[in-house]
Amino acid sequence: MKTTILIHCPDQAGIICTVTGFISKNKGNIVYLDQHVDKPANVFFMRTVVEFEEDYYDLDHFKTLFQKELASTYNMQWSIHTDDKSPKMAIFVSKYKHCLYDLLSRYRSGELEVEIPFILSNHNDLRHIADQFNIPFFHVPFNKENRVEAEKEQLALLEKYDIDFIVLARYMQIVSGTLINKFPNKIINIHHSFLPAFAGAKPYHAAFKRGVKIIGATSHYVTEELDAGPIIEQDVTTVTHSHSIEDFIVKGRDLEKIVLSRGVKLHIARKTMVYNNKTVIFS
Amino acid sequence: MKTTILIHCPDQAGIICTVTGFISKNKGNIVYLDQHVDKPANVFFMRTVVEFEEDYYDLDHFKTLFQKELASTYNMQWSIHTDDKSPKMAIFVSKYKHCLYDLLSRYRSGELEVEIPFILSNHNDLRHIADQFNIPFFHVPFNKENRVEAEKEQLALLEKYDIDFIVLARYMQIVSGTLINKFPNKIINIHHSFLPAFAGAKPYHAAFKRGVKIIGATSHYVTEELDAGPIIEQDVTTVTHSHSIEDFIVKGRDLEKIVLSRGVKLHIARKTMVYNNKTVIFS
Amino acid sequence: MKTTILIHCPDQAGIICTVTGFISKNKGNIVYLDQHVDKPANVFFMRTVVEFEEDYYDLDHFKTLFQKELASTYNMQWSIHTDDKSPKMAIFVSKYKHCLYDLLSRYRSGELEVEIPFILSNHNDLRHIADQFNIPFFHVPFNKENRVEAEKEQLALLEKYDIDFIVLARYMQIVSGTLINKFPNKIINIHHSFLPAFAGAKPYHAAFKRGVKIIGATSHYVTEELDAGPIIEQDVTTVTHSHSIEDFIVKGRDLEKIVLSRGVKLHIARKTMVYNNKTVIFS
Amino acid sequence: MKTTILIHCPDQAGIICTVTGFISKNKGNIVYLDQHVDKPANVFFMRTVVEFEEDYYDLDHFKTLFQKELASTYNMQWSIHTDDKSPKMAIFVSKYKHCLYDLLSRYRSGELEVEIPFILSNHNDLRHIADQFNIPFFHVPFNKENRVEAEKEQLALLEKYDIDFIVLARYMQIVSGTLINKFPNKIINIHHSFLPAFAGAKPYHAAFKRGVKIIGATSHYVTEELDAGPIIEQDVTTVTHSHSIEDFIVKGRDLEKIVLSRGVKLHIARKTMVYNNKTVIFS
Repeated sequence: MKTTILIHCPDQAGIICTVTGFISKNKGNIVYLDQHVDKPANVFFMRTVVEFEEDYYDLDHFKTLFQKELASTYNMQWSIHTDDKSPKMAIFVSKYKHCLYDLLSRYRSGELEVEIPFILSNHNDLRHIADQFNIPFFHVPFNKENRVEAEKEQLALLEKYDIDFIVLARYMQIVSGTLINKFPNKIINIHHSFLPAFAGAKPYHAAFKRGVKIIGATSHYVTEELDAGPIIEQDVTTVTHSHSIEDFIVKGRDLEKIVLSRGVKLHIARKTMVYNNKTVIFS
Repeated sequence: MKTTILIHCPDQAGIICTVTGFISKNKGNIVYLDQHVDKPANVFFMRTVVEFEEDYYDLDHFKTLFQKELASTYNMQWSIHTDDKSPKMAIFVSKYKHCLYDLLSRYRSGELEVEIPFILSNHNDLRHIADQFNIPFFHVPFNKENRVEAEKEQLALLEKYDIDFIVLARYMQIVSGTLINKFPNKIINIHHSFLPAFAGAKPYHAAFKRGVKIIGATSHYVTEELDAGPIIEQDVTTVTHSHSIEDFIVKGRDLEKIVLSRGVKLHIARKTMVYNNKTVIFS
Repeated sequence: MKTTILIHCPDQAGIICTVTGFISKNKGNIVYLDQHVDKPANVFFMRTVVEFEEDYYDLDHFKTLFQKELASTYNMQWSIHTDDKSPKMAIFVSKYKHCLYDLLSRYRSGELEVEIPFILSNHNDLRHIADQFNIPFFHVPFNKENRVEAEKEQLALLEKYDIDFIVLARYMQIVSGTLINKFPNKIINIHHSFLPAFAGAKPYHAAFKRGVKIIGATSHYVTEELDAGPIIEQDVTTVTHSHSIEDFIVKGRDLEKIVLSRGVKLHIARKTMVYNNKTVIFS
Repeated sequence: MKTTILIHCPDQAGIICTVTGFISKNKGNIVYLDQHVDKPANVFFMRTVVEFEEDYYDLDHFKTLFQKELASTYNMQWSIHTDDKSPKMAIFVSKYKHCLYDLLSRYRSGELEVEIPFILSNHNDLRHIADQFNIPFFHVPFNKENRVEAEKEQLALLEKYDIDFIVLARYMQIVSGTLINKFPNKIINIHHSFLPAFAGAKPYHAAFKRGVKIIGATSHYVTEELDAGPIIEQDVTTVTHSHSIEDFIVKGRDLEKIVLSRGVKLHIARKTMVYNNKTVIFS
């Protein structure tokens, strides 16, 4: 079984050797290893993919040893993931179709190794797309008055379906601290600008007004500060004076789809680590 | 002789036909025409390149007719440029070499159709490069105390050498309103970020801190608000978590050179028009 | 009504003035004009969008005058298109889902102003997607033995449904001269390489073998020579030594979708003209 | 002292652990490690940067141990490089200025950690640039008649100045097998197309004729087959129907400069390994 190990800890000499030695001693063969040192912060990051000899393999035992012999000594934050079950991803949407269509098409094409237990929206407009792809759809209206109630309903659904992470596919609603704290670095948003430029509402309008020659999109983990969470992926496309705001929106849709789906794929593949409100993205 | 005509005026029906008819009547052959309508502002922009039959050609007469028969009726702002003399470009620098080397290399390779009467700097560090390329170099120190004096000296030089436009090739000093008003939309700056993100000082540091996955550069006309003038050209390059601030700076240098030189070329070719703090960039 | 006029003819002095004068005389207001001169071939191209005063507007009459007063004098090839009816687009597919999903999602999102009377395939694999989007699906098996029969069936369907143009969304079959001649510059193919590199079968395998650092996709009009028709649109993405052929294929899918959909949009908007096996793409 | 170790060998389990263990045992601290497995070829590649405790450090002894304990067991090809001396780079040019100006400007800006003992050309046209930057310039005419003689002269110069690698900065002459064999994977060429498209002479003309929408440049190691060596770096830029061949050439120059300088930097930093006519490029 392919096992992915993610580690971060204070940097110190010999750490790669120690980790690889530990894995080797436990009959693991390293098939991939990438590491990064954040020099200013003096933090070491590592992602390794290991194949174990089946006879020796007892994941729980390995985890216990890992914590005891390695993690406690080096003050490591770590997680271990096996590929025998797909994570469960909930999609939150409002009224925009393009990101939802894109995610579901990729899902049905076998491009995303997840389960999608449900789609949730504050509107009913996109229910037909959920139906078209045979995914359960929950309509949870959301407004100033019902905010607390609505969030309770959201949390209940997330719990009931045992959701691992949430994708805001142009959800257009601010997510509360309660939800964020339940899913730390597990809510992925797509913002339609190259952040930090044009955070907040109507970025295409702001970009048009400023007369930029490039527009962008950013997928990031959601934190309590709006559009200020750790950036996973960004991409841009050129525009000219001849493009209207409507043209920006149309060109931007293609960016949003790609930048969001790349972010989601990196998350699914356990290639992202977060530190100091920034991401390490392994190759 | 190739004659370039730039026009902007309130948009109205029939204007292309009227202008092209006027040119044709005056024995001009249109070899290029591009036009743009800023719909929200209801402004018409046009750039056309005309070749006149030599026998009939009297530029001053043409200009008089143009103003009388066309411009006054349509409330046009316009300018006419011939290619028989190169504009005079002054370069302002501080201590960074890369943009200066790039501009001078392009100049000596015949890529920029300008004269460069002088290079001006608030430091003496790059004098050897000016020498190397045989361009006069003036050292005009600039600080809080001598600001007014220094600017007088700058203005005297700009006047003496009959400068048409100024390129701030990483000049690192704020240019005063006096200078800007003497050279409206004629001072080109390179800023080392994709504006409006990271305006002001140390954009690479700010980009690093924010954890962006893309860095950029922007060439723009200088206005009194810092880094907020009309954008001529922007470009970006990807970065990852593994890049240090120093890496950002090195990667950024290549962007700065290209984005600045493209902006300068567009300006020289009379392909830029400014309106509402935005540019129209003709092809 | 918005009317788009496309013209190409031998280049000569005064032609823009003549065309715009003719339109103006016939109570048309030019809202867009772009022109191009292919200097080596001495050919003039023009695309203009015109709004006519409704009282005066008689399209057939305008066309007659256009031919008589303009086209015959200047030896013009021309076409006139109004936006009152959408073109009819047939999609041909084999077994790959991504381009089909992408086109249909864009169609249902209102991004493509076409009708899609049917999807045709030599396999039955993607019928469920056609069903999912409620588009008729025809299975026309295609092999060495039945080639002539199959093509007859294809042609009958194209005629019956009055198809204007065909999109080969990874159709994977060579289209015969008969079909091409019935739809000259009206069959759009997506090839999964930056042509002319890696024409023919298995371009990702060839790119991997060659060790390129960039892969691409190309949408083009189909001509009898394989993968050699006029290029409409191209785009690329970076790859590294660490990408496997499978990675190339996955990264390439996103390119293919975007490059094909851009080509289709340009065709629908009448922004493409073909000459000497090359395209002029208006802005 | 920073020591870079490059390894490739048949892939097998435990190899990372063995190498890192060996380094650690010899008082080395791994500050960077990247590895790659070419699965189809079953070859393991590794680049690691090590800092040794000064008291223990004896490079020759380390090398001897490395060969004995590690390399012979694992059948490794390997090389070890310290950063205490800069490699010696010769530049070969013909008549084009842009790449030469670019390399020398970068060199004088401190961007390239090399020595440049000389510039060699088959013409005298660029001697003034060598003079301007104070680099020795040798004029070695090259034609059908004097080919053998000329090459002898080249080889004598390369030997006399103890050259480590050669950069063909638009040299425009075919390099013979003799030279290539003396400098295997040590001659870097810039070709002005995205190879394998448009190999050979006049790629911009060929690209224009084909009507591509993208042009590119490729830096690669020179092998006996023309423009078919291992690719180090590629980049592209967009073009349209409105660009002439001359425009392609001008836009292409910026690509060539950047793609060549990136290739040279990667080579200097020992970030390239060659296998099966492909490169592994470490980050």
